[in-house]
Amino acid sequence: MVPTQVVSAADLDRVWMRRCLELAETALGQTAPNPLVGCVVVKDGEVVGEGFHPKAGQPHAEVYALKAAAGRAQGATLYVNLEPCNHYGRTPPCTEAVIAAGVRRVVIGMVDPNPQVAGQGVARLRAAGLEVTVGVEAAACEQLNEAFSFWMLRQRPFGILKYAMTLDGKIAATGGHSAWVTSVAARSQVHTWRKGCDAVVVGGETVRQDDPLLTSRQAVTPLRVVMSRSLALPKQAQLWNTQIAPTLVCTEPVANPAMQAFLRDRGVEVQSFSPLTPQAVMAFLGQRDCLSVLWECGGRLAAAAIADGSIQKVLALIAPKIIGGHDAPSPIGDLGFTRMTDALILERIRWQEIGGDLLIEGYLPDLPQLPQEPGYTSAAG
Amino acid sequence: MVPTQVVSAADLDRVWMRRCLELAETALGQTAPNPLVGCVVVKDGEVVGEGFHPKAGQPHAEVYALKAAAGRAQGATLYVNLEPCNHYGRTPPCTEAVIAAGVRRVVIGMVDPNPQVAGQGVARLRAAGLEVTVGVEAAACEQLNEAFSFWMLRQRPFGILKYAMTLDGKIAATGGHSAWVTSVAARSQVHTWRKGCDAVVVGGETVRQDDPLLTSRQAVTPLRVVMSRSLALPKQAQLWNTQIAPTLVCTEPVANPAMQAFLRDRGVEVQSFSPLTPQAVMAFLGQRDCLSVLWECGGRLAAAAIADGSIQKVLALIAPKIIGGHDAPSPIGDLGFTRMTDALILERIRWQEIGGDLLIEGYLPDLPQLPQEPGYTSAAG
Repeated sequence: MVPTQVVSAADLDRVWMRRCLELAETALGQTAPNPLVGCVVVKDGEVVGEGFHPKAGQPHAEVYALKAAAGRAQGATLYVNLEPCNHYGRTPPCTEAVIAAGVRRVVIGMVDPNPQVAGQGVARLRAAGLEVTVGVEAAACEQLNEAFSFWMLRQRPFGILKYAMTLDGKIAATGGHSAWVTSVAARSQVHTWRKGCDAVVVGGETVRQDDPLLTSRQAVTPLRVVMSRSLALPKQAQLWNTQIAPTLVCTEPVANPAMQAFLRDRGVEVQSFSPLTPQAVMAFLGQRDCLSVLWECGGRLAAAAIADGSIQKVLALIAPKIIGGHDAPSPIGDLGFTRMTDALILERIRWQEIGGDLLIEGYLPDLPQLPQEPGYTSAAG
Repeated sequence: MVPTQVVSAADLDRVWMRRCLELAETALGQTAPNPLVGCVVVKDGEVVGEGFHPKAGQPHAEVYALKAAAGRAQGATLYVNLEPCNHYGRTPPCTEAVIAAGVRRVVIGMVDPNPQVAGQGVARLRAAGLEVTVGVEAAACEQLNEAFSFWMLRQRPFGILKYAMTLDGKIAATGGHSAWVTSVAARSQVHTWRKGCDAVVVGGETVRQDDPLLTSRQAVTPLRVVMSRSLALPKQAQLWNTQIAPTLVCTEPVANPAMQAFLRDRGVEVQSFSPLTPQAVMAFLGQRDCLSVLWECGGRLAAAAIADGSIQKVLALIAPKIIGGHDAPSPIGDLGFTRMTDALILERIRWQEIGGDLLIEGYLPDLPQLPQEPGYTSAAG
């Protein structure tokens, strides 16, 4: 005989918070510069309203959920993965809507990462007599909006370096052929990462070698960014088809005017930086409301991006195969380290299998900027 | 109230077989050219005798277990991870000892890998009226003696390539510094691998760069082997201290007579091969009753060993750190592949965490010999 399963109130809170996260993810890649937020209104153990924030300028998640709940919100519990706002922005404060609806208890995943307003929503709700619980499924809530939090605190996008390598550490065979290192399932995961980011960056060498498409293969797709000082780029490239997705080429002022004209003629945006560095591009993308930027570049640009602080997280896919090659490219170029003890130790490591390949993810330590190589861009394409 | 746990007879068989494997492993590294074998005699649910094969020339596991059981073996079940022998070798056939002891049932992990005798022990026991079960915990039994089986079938040692690399695929920093890539726990695991192998191989470059000790740090330690065509080796090296463990240097006939004399004077064995190849060294080690050989060499020698069929299994330790370096060495040199689709796909992949690092292990496909580079040895040190 199976005994009746007892679920604690805390367990139930976690269940509903995970539902908020699911709802929030519905809008993956569509909310920048706003966070991903989902909301559930529960009364007597049943969901009476759900919602998520679909897009900047649209109502917040709480508004949708309360609207769906209507009169049933009276005396209910509202779950939301991020602290309800308490200020007039593009929309009125959610705290007032929650109070007005007669909600009795509010369960919040994490407080607002902006220290200027963190806790104000909680305080307003408590002042109005509501019971408030904070920090349910906090780690998952923080991870979902890690890019938003980083952008809010640092005023620049959260950088993610993704690469796929063989078990012997190569991202391509000698000569550059790289299709494909990983399985179909792992490549599909890469498409989902692209969907969740606001921009994807490659260097000129990747355009020349791989002619990538860089879309998510889904309706929501990131801005595609190419960094190329020389603009010595092929005229035939999938990235110049801007009907599929927008493309931005970042270069230096004097580079190849004919190619600049060619690109603009095809609807590609061309921006000049002096000098062209990962940091300069990230600052520009941050101003353009990109919260998260996925770097899918080769080893030289990856090293430059790590060295100038443009990368916070690493997603390494490892395929259980051996290609060999003394000159086969590896994922990260020179960082100036000559002792193994200099290595950057990744933090909060996690791994999982994806379609027979292994994903290792971790965070770079929050280091002072590394000594720069004499100009990434001076040698880069 | 916890209900009485019901354990099936098949479950019990697995429990006792795992005990056999534990006992067998007691002699790790000490039995070549014999297999690792453990034996348990169980009567009325209780162990009445245990044993393992300690060393070639000593009695087999069954003999020890039956001796311990004495009269209690009458009507008992005998568990053993490898089929009892049915022939007169250095010791009389175990089948006769089992029958004479009055054992009623025999449970066997795997049959003898030698096709000449496989099944003969089982047949003899059944002919004598004993009940025989074969294949309990077969996968674990086969793995424990994979080197023995390979050596028995192919007449050469089982080759294992081990390397430790960073998450960006480097085995050392630019310039060669590599102490240490992995954690203390992972390095301790390497010591256990060494204990379980009959020889460990490095190239001259590893001696010059790392001055390794190559012991297991335990009482049982493998033969230490250096492959060096030039014998341009340092006179001060831990490997020349043969009081700790024996060392064999493999070279070519005309190499550096003064160094040859120096090495022999220190008790180092020097053998010449013409030409010096991984395959030639493996054949020599096989004749010397080495069942398993651990390759802990750099990328160039690792590639040569893979290419000429000297490697069957790969043990890759991956540390979650980034060292960078365009010229930092990676674990495997040229295999002649120019397309990613040429890569060797590892089989039977497994992974586990060891002290914060990741171990990925797998088996190379059983390929025809790869096209050789123009002489590994012509360029190697």
